[in-house]
Amino acid sequence: MIIDALNCSNWSRELFQELRNADVTCIHVTTAVWENGRETLSQLHKWYRWFRQHNDLIMPVTTGADISQAAKLGKTGVVLGFQGSSPIEDDLGMLELFYKLDVRIMQLTYNNASLLGGGCYEPNDGGLTRFGRETIREMNRLGMLIDLSHVGETTCHQAIDASDRPVSITHANPRFMTDIPRSKSADLLKHLADNEGMLGCSLYPLLIGGREVTCEQWCTMIARTVEIMGVDKVGIGTDLVRNQTPQYLDWLRMGRWTHGVDYGASSKPNRDWPIWQDWFQSSLDFPNIVQGLRDIGFNEAETAQIMGENWHRFFTKAFQPQAEQTL
Amino acid sequence: MIIDALNCSNWSRELFQELRNADVTCIHVTTAVWENGRETLSQLHKWYRWFRQHNDLIMPVTTGADISQAAKLGKTGVVLGFQGSSPIEDDLGMLELFYKLDVRIMQLTYNNASLLGGGCYEPNDGGLTRFGRETIREMNRLGMLIDLSHVGETTCHQAIDASDRPVSITHANPRFMTDIPRSKSADLLKHLADNEGMLGCSLYPLLIGGREVTCEQWCTMIARTVEIMGVDKVGIGTDLVRNQTPQYLDWLRMGRWTHGVDYGASSKPNRDWPIWQDWFQSSLDFPNIVQGLRDIGFNEAETAQIMGENWHRFFTKAFQPQAEQTL
Repeated sequence: MIIDALNCSNWSRELFQELRNADVTCIHVTTAVWENGRETLSQLHKWYRWFRQHNDLIMPVTTGADISQAAKLGKTGVVLGFQGSSPIEDDLGMLELFYKLDVRIMQLTYNNASLLGGGCYEPNDGGLTRFGRETIREMNRLGMLIDLSHVGETTCHQAIDASDRPVSITHANPRFMTDIPRSKSADLLKHLADNEGMLGCSLYPLLIGGREVTCEQWCTMIARTVEIMGVDKVGIGTDLVRNQTPQYLDWLRMGRWTHGVDYGASSKPNRDWPIWQDWFQSSLDFPNIVQGLRDIGFNEAETAQIMGENWHRFFTKAFQPQAEQTL
Repeated sequence: MIIDALNCSNWSRELFQELRNADVTCIHVTTAVWENGRETLSQLHKWYRWFRQHNDLIMPVTTGADISQAAKLGKTGVVLGFQGSSPIEDDLGMLELFYKLDVRIMQLTYNNASLLGGGCYEPNDGGLTRFGRETIREMNRLGMLIDLSHVGETTCHQAIDASDRPVSITHANPRFMTDIPRSKSADLLKHLADNEGMLGCSLYPLLIGGREVTCEQWCTMIARTVEIMGVDKVGIGTDLVRNQTPQYLDWLRMGRWTHGVDYGASSKPNRDWPIWQDWFQSSLDFPNIVQGLRDIGFNEAETAQIMGENWHRFFTKAFQPQAEQTL
């Protein structure tokens, strides 16, 4: 079972077919980054229509059982998520509304400070806000998974402590791999794992240190991360961006918050989408990862955990309403 | 079983308790009149919170089975609805989003023309629009009940014809009772019934001809309506407005569409909420209606149909998604 805890592609039937050809059981997709509540509704409805139009290839998943069902039916299950908190605006009630609309994962911030806390590119991370604490409590109640991928380090630590339930970093790499603000310190990963949280390691070129990095080096990063977090707490969140447009890259990086240019994890001479490494061009290359993990010494069971079983177990619990939770 | 197909009160625990004291099994409530999509989300969430806070008295209902369950548990079931189409703005996808958020009834227009068609107070009713026809098709697919209470006569006729499924007028009276634009012609009621639609007769003073009208006169109106439509197609939609504020009356009548004064079904010397007739002051007076219906000759079974069984049967079918419909 392959679960990709973030795939940000520019979706089409061809790409859904690619997921099936790659036998990907489940992906987490982005339905909002900077969109406000109203705009997000229209983004969500695009997915509802895709679920109907391409129901031979994909299906919505909102529970662990749905993921099992997707595997059984040979479809790719799709978890709807937000990369930032803009969809809820300043309204705590929006979380429950979006949960009812099948959203199961939300990042507290996207690069910048949000109403909830500090972002990973802020020079000063003021930590979790009052509204941020209320939001965590409500997400805990509903069974909406907290995602810290683009969140500032201080806010990450405080969110882990504030949450009654395990939280996640769906797509990021350890700072020992790439020393950029977007990557996570070993301390943070340890703190995350100590609270039963999970990390999805990314294959995005700028997060692995460039396309020259080898599959073996990436798998070695996994091994080192497993030493810190445990083999049951590491998975994959590729951050794949198949067929994406330069316009979407600008939207991700600049939203409406600047009229200038922000480079995100990139740099001035490299403003466009990065070119991906030869050994991971699309979901069809997941077998390279499987092979790489086996080659550096993970056994079959461990490899299966990292490729998808960990996320399956984790999502199963995380998406349950608190009242129904079987702890 | 008492079902009130419109109760527009200013809700509080006391009023929920009143519904229980009156043994009302189900009410249809208004969560939007002029609110846009985003504003409507916050209105809906108020109800989610009330459902939790007062779960000993009320519960959400989205199916016929839920109504039976409310009756069994001794709670009042609440159907969430819109009095106009402002919540969907210009976006067909909003219907499915709101259906998932438990909205089950929507009026096509509220007094004025909307993007869907002509309103009952428009001097010219241009009939159903292109978007109106798409909306009806989508509501049919979802299992969202079309309500024509404040809709213009021409648009009403066209909506009945355009809909593949029975439609409703949840709260209005026949024009032979009160000859105002807000009331419905006998022709229209016949057309509605010929297509298996239902009418909820109102107890709102301005719609019955004033508070001097007697319970017997009102029940005679019911008898005459039953002659036109059949005893299985008439129910009650009081349009009760317990504890409502003058501000809400202004919102209903003027929304944001005029900075002047509009009197709705009222007139200049009578701008405030009307005083209700002695024999129907609140839900606690439903026994007067039961008695009145019996007194003018309805038998026990017919009275039960009019008081609630008709709506129960009708809602059961109307709220089913088209795909699941058992015709």
